[in-house]
Amino acid sequence: MMDRRSFLGAAGAGLLLCTVDGRTVQVTSAKDVEDVDRAAAALRQPGSARAAQEGGEFPTPEPQAGGRAREFWLAARPVRWTIAPASRDEWMKKAIPEPSTFKALVYQQYSAGFAAPIGPAEIPGPTLRAEVGDTIVVHFRNDAESFNQALTVHPHGVRYNPEYDGSYLGDFTRAGGFVAPGEEFTYVWECTPQAVGAWPYHDHGPNHTLNTFRGLFGAIIVREKGDPGPEVQQVLYMHSFPPPVTNLEVTYQCLNGRTGAGNTPTVQARVGQDVAWYVFGGDSNFHTFHVHGHRWRGRGGAFEDCPTFGPNETLIAAWREDNPGRWLYHCHVFTHQDAGMAGWYLVDP
Amino acid sequence: MMDRRSFLGAAGAGLLLCTVDGRTVQVTSAKDVEDVDRAAAALRQPGSARAAQEGGEFPTPEPQAGGRAREFWLAARPVRWTIAPASRDEWMKKAIPEPSTFKALVYQQYSAGFAAPIGPAEIPGPTLRAEVGDTIVVHFRNDAESFNQALTVHPHGVRYNPEYDGSYLGDFTRAGGFVAPGEEFTYVWECTPQAVGAWPYHDHGPNHTLNTFRGLFGAIIVREKGDPGPEVQQVLYMHSFPPPVTNLEVTYQCLNGRTGAGNTPTVQARVGQDVAWYVFGGDSNFHTFHVHGHRWRGRGGAFEDCPTFGPNETLIAAWREDNPGRWLYHCHVFTHQDAGMAGWYLVDP
Amino acid sequence: MMDRRSFLGAAGAGLLLCTVDGRTVQVTSAKDVEDVDRAAAALRQPGSARAAQEGGEFPTPEPQAGGRAREFWLAARPVRWTIAPASRDEWMKKAIPEPSTFKALVYQQYSAGFAAPIGPAEIPGPTLRAEVGDTIVVHFRNDAESFNQALTVHPHGVRYNPEYDGSYLGDFTRAGGFVAPGEEFTYVWECTPQAVGAWPYHDHGPNHTLNTFRGLFGAIIVREKGDPGPEVQQVLYMHSFPPPVTNLEVTYQCLNGRTGAGNTPTVQARVGQDVAWYVFGGDSNFHTFHVHGHRWRGRGGAFEDCPTFGPNETLIAAWREDNPGRWLYHCHVFTHQDAGMAGWYLVDP
Repeated sequence: MMDRRSFLGAAGAGLLLCTVDGRTVQVTSAKDVEDVDRAAAALRQPGSARAAQEGGEFPTPEPQAGGRAREFWLAARPVRWTIAPASRDEWMKKAIPEPSTFKALVYQQYSAGFAAPIGPAEIPGPTLRAEVGDTIVVHFRNDAESFNQALTVHPHGVRYNPEYDGSYLGDFTRAGGFVAPGEEFTYVWECTPQAVGAWPYHDHGPNHTLNTFRGLFGAIIVREKGDPGPEVQQVLYMHSFPPPVTNLEVTYQCLNGRTGAGNTPTVQARVGQDVAWYVFGGDSNFHTFHVHGHRWRGRGGAFEDCPTFGPNETLIAAWREDNPGRWLYHCHVFTHQDAGMAGWYLVDP
Repeated sequence: MMDRRSFLGAAGAGLLLCTVDGRTVQVTSAKDVEDVDRAAAALRQPGSARAAQEGGEFPTPEPQAGGRAREFWLAARPVRWTIAPASRDEWMKKAIPEPSTFKALVYQQYSAGFAAPIGPAEIPGPTLRAEVGDTIVVHFRNDAESFNQALTVHPHGVRYNPEYDGSYLGDFTRAGGFVAPGEEFTYVWECTPQAVGAWPYHDHGPNHTLNTFRGLFGAIIVREKGDPGPEVQQVLYMHSFPPPVTNLEVTYQCLNGRTGAGNTPTVQARVGQDVAWYVFGGDSNFHTFHVHGHRWRGRGGAFEDCPTFGPNETLIAAWREDNPGRWLYHCHVFTHQDAGMAGWYLVDP
Repeated sequence: MMDRRSFLGAAGAGLLLCTVDGRTVQVTSAKDVEDVDRAAAALRQPGSARAAQEGGEFPTPEPQAGGRAREFWLAARPVRWTIAPASRDEWMKKAIPEPSTFKALVYQQYSAGFAAPIGPAEIPGPTLRAEVGDTIVVHFRNDAESFNQALTVHPHGVRYNPEYDGSYLGDFTRAGGFVAPGEEFTYVWECTPQAVGAWPYHDHGPNHTLNTFRGLFGAIIVREKGDPGPEVQQVLYMHSFPPPVTNLEVTYQCLNGRTGAGNTPTVQARVGQDVAWYVFGGDSNFHTFHVHGHRWRGRGGAFEDCPTFGPNETLIAAWREDNPGRWLYHCHVFTHQDAGMAGWYLVDP
């Protein structure tokens, strides 16, 4: 029988359903998570015989003439992550009871050669920026030894050959689709003209659903050559941390790993600046994006202020700022906004 | 433990989750609703010190040259609302057992100076129509004293400064974001060229989720100057009344506050007329809009007959009528259409 | 009280809610399905008096000059359908335990005059192809006598008059909206210029939700005159088989009636070919469509690789192939992809 907590946890977050190593587990408890992790830990790197036989050679792409290789060093590593560091929702004047801390998994950026971490751990991971003609080179290291399972980086939008897909594919898995604890792999992706825009990247290893829900996601932004982009750029992931993942009481509806205005990003701009929001769905739910006092040209050309998008879909909302004040931005799914998927946007005159 | 009724109520409607005055309540019963209402009633108008200090002056906008102020008088008031007045679903030949009546909250339109109500109470509230260059001036009165909590009007699409946002923002709330029982506030919104289209308006007070689910929503339509718009115009909200809100047995899937063909709007047109449907999501669910025998140019230019939209997103479906007969229109989510989210569209030759 | 299996079945599939003959049933068990089927079997063809009186004459349309009638013979019939014929998910290296077989309902194509079945039964049913100026003529026979209830064919996108709507409409039902067991009806639909594209067709009889979930759906593709279309064309339905429908243990997340890579369509193409995917939502859920290593121009012109679509909405993803290898395609809703809504796309150099 389902108890009330299991029901609300599962329902509030959508279901969390993981398939690893031959089993599909309906994850509704920390115990289920342990089972899934144990299955992932037991998984051996698939023999690459079938993949190699099938695929022939996939040469590593080079930058186009005039382009360059943009190198990033990313390590997946565990981090004690606090969902509501201010312990308070400023919109709703609500105390968010401690603790809201759990063991997350993040893509931590490092300086060249994994010499030193760049800044604190963040959810989402670092934004990978490049221009048309460049390659994006991601040196990835699985530093999450305590999680003891293979991890990867799978990109959207950019071009890549199967060698750099970053996906576990069962017996057809290539090296980049199964980076075991302590191991490294270098992905090389091409920024073709079609890749202009903003795209998600995320874990696509054998336990991708659970590890994505733990925080293994980020953004790629590709621009035309020489285009610096808008002055204000905000990457925004709408996602959730459900109880089985955090071992906390409730499902946290999040923006960039935080819940509740004052914890979620407080975005700042000035009148006259070009502003762009790159918004992504990061869980199994669909979302809408609303910014008070603003509207923008949607994909079809008409103005909109609350468009729908889904898991790992990209929404771009961009305008020239002309409306000063304190504004709320939020997902307009009522159950999401009331559970913390909201933040402040402050525009100076 | 969840009993079957709680489960079906919650699941069928999506969850109803309310955050008021420092607490998030998973609303699954009338008792939960009482708790949320009590919390909202206890809430005092936030001191405006922080808001005032932060924001400087926000002058009241004037119409552009050649434009005018379109004034509306709206009162939020309780009403005994019957979801299925015909007690019957004509499509499914299904009796809809009495009673389907509950205590709703509506935006009631009044003549100038709140002299007298204009027409009966409706869900959605009155459609606010204006042209580019106009201001929309909404004189709003909270006449829902029995509900004993602050209410507001928050618009989409039009331009407004923070003074006229109509949103509760915790300590940053301005006067229009907290209109206490018995009080009035006048909102002034600008119809800029970007505002051309159709947009939702709705309560965004401290208990906005619950009060929006009770019926506090409506539509704004802004046109180019001198454009009378299509001959047939139908505003259509797809939404639901879940058991905790109505204290009734089942979740009603609704169009404009009614359920089941014969109760929902029966829309009429003639061959040769221009027809436009302004369709909005009014709950936490996503919907699709399908009209039998018709298709129309979607936002991207291609023809469509069943597009997706989400909470407080606008969908416009428009065509020149050329296909006479009795047609069904409905949400194509099976669980919604079978629970009443359908109606008749009658086209005369 | 809900037991765990009922909860997971209902939640995993979304709810299955059927309204037949005056009752709405929340279908969570095989017993509920029996009840709904019994109600549908008891339903008599509605008197057409009201429909006839209302509608006047609706002449059968003819092809335009230069067009022709494209005739199809379709019979709805029961079939033992195996959801995972390979008993294995090649992506997840997961055994899919036998049995995954249940009694489905399909549109079986026949040669002229119902002389002989064309090929094996398939889910979705045959793709109905035509060009602008043609009529699509569907000779439909209800051969599902063991299901003992009326069935129909309702098209999207094409033009039809009320006679050929194929929808049960209560007292307003016309002959094509109630084809009793053993009976036949011929639908005639027009391929107008607006119909260019891809569209669903499906049962819209009195028990449409249940029978659609059993497999009664397919695709219509209309092209400009003389346009043969892309070299590779793949119709793809994203849908689910919930436990009450199959009497099996779990909800199967499916592509074209199959679950898990190796069972779902393995799509093949060569570099240089034009490829088009016609993707449809076939249940009450919303989906996104992602193909590894590829992106395409979306409806608004921008490139995308993971767009959202809903029940009976069409998504077209098309490109000239330039990226050889083995690729995964899948719905990006995590709970769907992990439960089998994924497949292989093989591109030869």
